[in-house]
Amino acid sequence: MPVLQSLQLRCYNRTMADFKVNDIIEEICQLSKDDSGEISRLAFTDSWMRAHTYLKQFFEKLKFKTFVDQAGNLHGQTGGSGEVVLTGSHVDTVRNGGKYDGLYGVVGSALAVFRLLNKHGMPKKTLEVIAFSEEEGSRFPFSFWGSKNLVGGVDWNLISALKDQNGESFAPALERQGFIYTQDCARRNDISAYVELHIEQGGVLEKNNMEIGLVTSIVGQKRFIVEVFGEANHAGTTPMTYRKDSAYTSAAIISEIIKRAREHGPPMVLTVGQIEFRPNVSNVVPAYAQFSVDIRHTDTDILNRFTDEVLEFVNKTAREKDTTCQTRITVDDKPVYMDDGIMEIISNACQSRKVKYMKMPSGAGHDGQHISKLAAVGMIFVPSKKGISHSPMEFTEASQLELGIDILEETLYKLAY
Amino acid sequence: MPVLQSLQLRCYNRTMADFKVNDIIEEICQLSKDDSGEISRLAFTDSWMRAHTYLKQFFEKLKFKTFVDQAGNLHGQTGGSGEVVLTGSHVDTVRNGGKYDGLYGVVGSALAVFRLLNKHGMPKKTLEVIAFSEEEGSRFPFSFWGSKNLVGGVDWNLISALKDQNGESFAPALERQGFIYTQDCARRNDISAYVELHIEQGGVLEKNNMEIGLVTSIVGQKRFIVEVFGEANHAGTTPMTYRKDSAYTSAAIISEIIKRAREHGPPMVLTVGQIEFRPNVSNVVPAYAQFSVDIRHTDTDILNRFTDEVLEFVNKTAREKDTTCQTRITVDDKPVYMDDGIMEIISNACQSRKVKYMKMPSGAGHDGQHISKLAAVGMIFVPSKKGISHSPMEFTEASQLELGIDILEETLYKLAY
Repeated sequence: MPVLQSLQLRCYNRTMADFKVNDIIEEICQLSKDDSGEISRLAFTDSWMRAHTYLKQFFEKLKFKTFVDQAGNLHGQTGGSGEVVLTGSHVDTVRNGGKYDGLYGVVGSALAVFRLLNKHGMPKKTLEVIAFSEEEGSRFPFSFWGSKNLVGGVDWNLISALKDQNGESFAPALERQGFIYTQDCARRNDISAYVELHIEQGGVLEKNNMEIGLVTSIVGQKRFIVEVFGEANHAGTTPMTYRKDSAYTSAAIISEIIKRAREHGPPMVLTVGQIEFRPNVSNVVPAYAQFSVDIRHTDTDILNRFTDEVLEFVNKTAREKDTTCQTRITVDDKPVYMDDGIMEIISNACQSRKVKYMKMPSGAGHDGQHISKLAAVGMIFVPSKKGISHSPMEFTEASQLELGIDILEETLYKLAY
Repeated sequence: MPVLQSLQLRCYNRTMADFKVNDIIEEICQLSKDDSGEISRLAFTDSWMRAHTYLKQFFEKLKFKTFVDQAGNLHGQTGGSGEVVLTGSHVDTVRNGGKYDGLYGVVGSALAVFRLLNKHGMPKKTLEVIAFSEEEGSRFPFSFWGSKNLVGGVDWNLISALKDQNGESFAPALERQGFIYTQDCARRNDISAYVELHIEQGGVLEKNNMEIGLVTSIVGQKRFIVEVFGEANHAGTTPMTYRKDSAYTSAAIISEIIKRAREHGPPMVLTVGQIEFRPNVSNVVPAYAQFSVDIRHTDTDILNRFTDEVLEFVNKTAREKDTTCQTRITVDDKPVYMDDGIMEIISNACQSRKVKYMKMPSGAGHDGQHISKLAAVGMIFVPSKKGISHSPMEFTEASQLELGIDILEETLYKLAY
C-alpha cells in the first residue's frame, strides 16, 4: 500500500487534548479528496484508502487495538472482553459528497470512546469503534456492504459480478486495496449493542430548533419503476382523443400520488426523482414514459397499504387513459425499530444536560438497520443546515457536532461501564 | 458532383406509360438511403443529393425545363409564360423517416403535370413543379428553408452560423453540394397559386373512412419551454411539507393542461413531448424540471387565449407549490388559411369523381404556409395508415396515392389551362 508512505500524518503532531472532531474531519477530507478536488470516497478507491489508512493510525494514536476485516471494515477495540458495545459509522461517501455523512460518526465515536477511557479507565465490556467500509452504494449498485458483512450471509457470487462506472468489478477493486475476501470473513456474534452518531440529512431538527434527534426507527422503503406504454404520434396531426399519450398518464399519476402522500401526513414520504420520455422530442406525443417511485414510512402495514393503493391508482390511470403499464419493485426494505433501552439512555442523557431533543424516525437508511439483526441498536442525530446532505454544502455547527459526541459518550458509558 | 456519374438512372429504361408514383418513390428511397440503410435525406447530405439529382433527371425525362436555385430548390417548368401555377413538396426527410412525407408530393406533382401535358398539351399559364430543398429542419434547427427563400428576406447571417449534430455549419454544407448562396437568390414574384399534395400524417382520414382531405388551414403553433426551479432534497429525510418539489409542480401542470386541451375539443391539440429532471436520481427530490409545451389551433384568437390560460396556470401552480418557474417561447406561428377558390376547385374535383373527402385543418406545418405570402395556396391530403409519419412505418396504399394525383391533376387543369 504505497499510499501509507505518502500520508502526512499530521494528527501525530498533536497532543491528545487537541483532538477536535472538526479538525480531524477536515484533515481527512483534505487528504482524501479525489483528483478533481471533490469529496468522493467511493468504496475501495485510493481516496477511500487514504482516509481508511489515516483512521487506522488515528485509532492507534488513541490506543485502540485495531484490525481490518477482509470486507474492508476498520475496527478499533478497547477495554473488557466478551460482549461488545459497537459504535461508529461508515467511511465512504457518495460522489461529490459532504464532510459529515458517515465520517462524523466514525471520528465522533472514536473521540467519545477516547474521552471515556481518559475519564473512567477501561470499560467492563469491550468498546469497539467501527468504520464501515461501504454504506452508500455509490460505486457499485449495492448498499451496506460493510454492515451486511458483520451480519453474514452476503451472496459473494452476486456481488463479485457487480461493475462500477468504469467497468471494474467488485472483487478486483477489493483486492487492489489488499483485501482477500472469503464468505462470512467479517461475521460477528459477540455484539450486544450498536449506537451510531450521524447527521440528520433533513431539515426537521433545524426547523424545530432542536439540538439532538433521538431516532425511534429507520423507515421502511418501497421503490419501484413505473413504465407506461402509449403510442408515438405527431403533435399536430393527431387529435387529442386519438392519442395514447404516455406523458398524460405519467403526469396524472405523479401529480396524484404525491398529493395523496402529502394528505397522508408524516412520516409518509413519496418521491418521483427520475423520469424519462421516449422519444423525448417536443413535437412528438411520447410513446413511452418511465419514472421512479420511492415511498417510505415507519409502519410496515401502512407502507404496504399505501403502496398497494399507489399501484392500484397507477394501473387504473394507465387503463383510463388508453395506455398500458408495468411496475417493477427495486427496493423492499421493512422498517427497523430502535431498541427501547438504548432510546431511554439517550433520552436521559439529553434530559440531564437540558439538551433540546426530539424523537424522530430516520427517513434515510443506515448501517444500524442491518446490525439490528445482531444487536440492540440506537441512533443519535445532530442537525444538518437547511437539511442538505450528499452535497459539498453539507454543514453542521462545530458546537452541535461536539454535543452529539457528548450524548454518545454518556450513552456508551451506560452501556459499557 | 461525382454522385451524378454513379447514379443508376433506372427510370430511363422505362417508357412514359410505366411511370407509377410508387415505383419512382421506391427507386428514389433505395438510391438515397444513408450508410445505415435508413431513409435520412437530411438537407444537403449526399443521400439528399442523390435524390435531388435523380429528380432533376426525372423532370428532364418528363420534358420539363429544369433549374436549381442557389438555395437548393429544384424547379421543373412547362407551358405558357408569365403567371406561374406552382405545385410540389419537399425532398428532405427527418432522420430515419418514411417514404412519402414530402417525396410523394414532389413525384405526384410531376406526374400530374406530365399527364396534363399528354392529355391537353401546353397550359396557358406556366406550370412549375418544385422540390423544396429543406422543410423539416432535421439537420439544422431551421425549418422551411426552401419555401422561405422563395418568399425572400431569410436572414443569412443567422442561418449561416447554424451547426448540425456533427458541428458542420450551414454555409459549407450548402457549398459542398455546389450551391453559392446569395441573399434573395431564390426570391420569386411571379407565382399566383401553389397546390401541394401531401400525406395526412394523422389518423383522421383513415378513422373517418375518407379518401381525400381538403385542407382548410394550417394550424397556428405556440411552442414554449417551461423551467421549474425547486430544491434538491433527500427522498427519505425531507418531510413532504418542507419540499420544493419540481416534479410535483411539473406533473400537476402537465396533467391539467392536457386535460384542458382535451376538454376544449378539436382542433385544439396540446403536447408535452420532452421532459427533463435534475439530478434525475430516484432518491433525490428534483431541484429542477423542464418540459416542452406545443399548442396548436386554427384560430389565432383561440390559440392566443388558450396559451395565455396555460401560461397563467403554469405560473399559479409553480407559486402554489412553493417553486418558481420561467417560460420561454420557441415557436409562434400564426394559422394560415387556404384559398377559397382553390378549395372550391378541389372540392368540385372530388365531387365530380364521387370521391369521399372531408374538409380538415393541417395540424402539421407545410411549405404552403410560407408560399401563402406570395400566392393563393391549396393542399390535398391522402390518408396515412394508422396516422403514422416520420417513421419507416409510414404507409399509404398505392390506389390512394394515385387518387391524390388525379385530384391534383384536375385542380391544376382548372388553375393553369
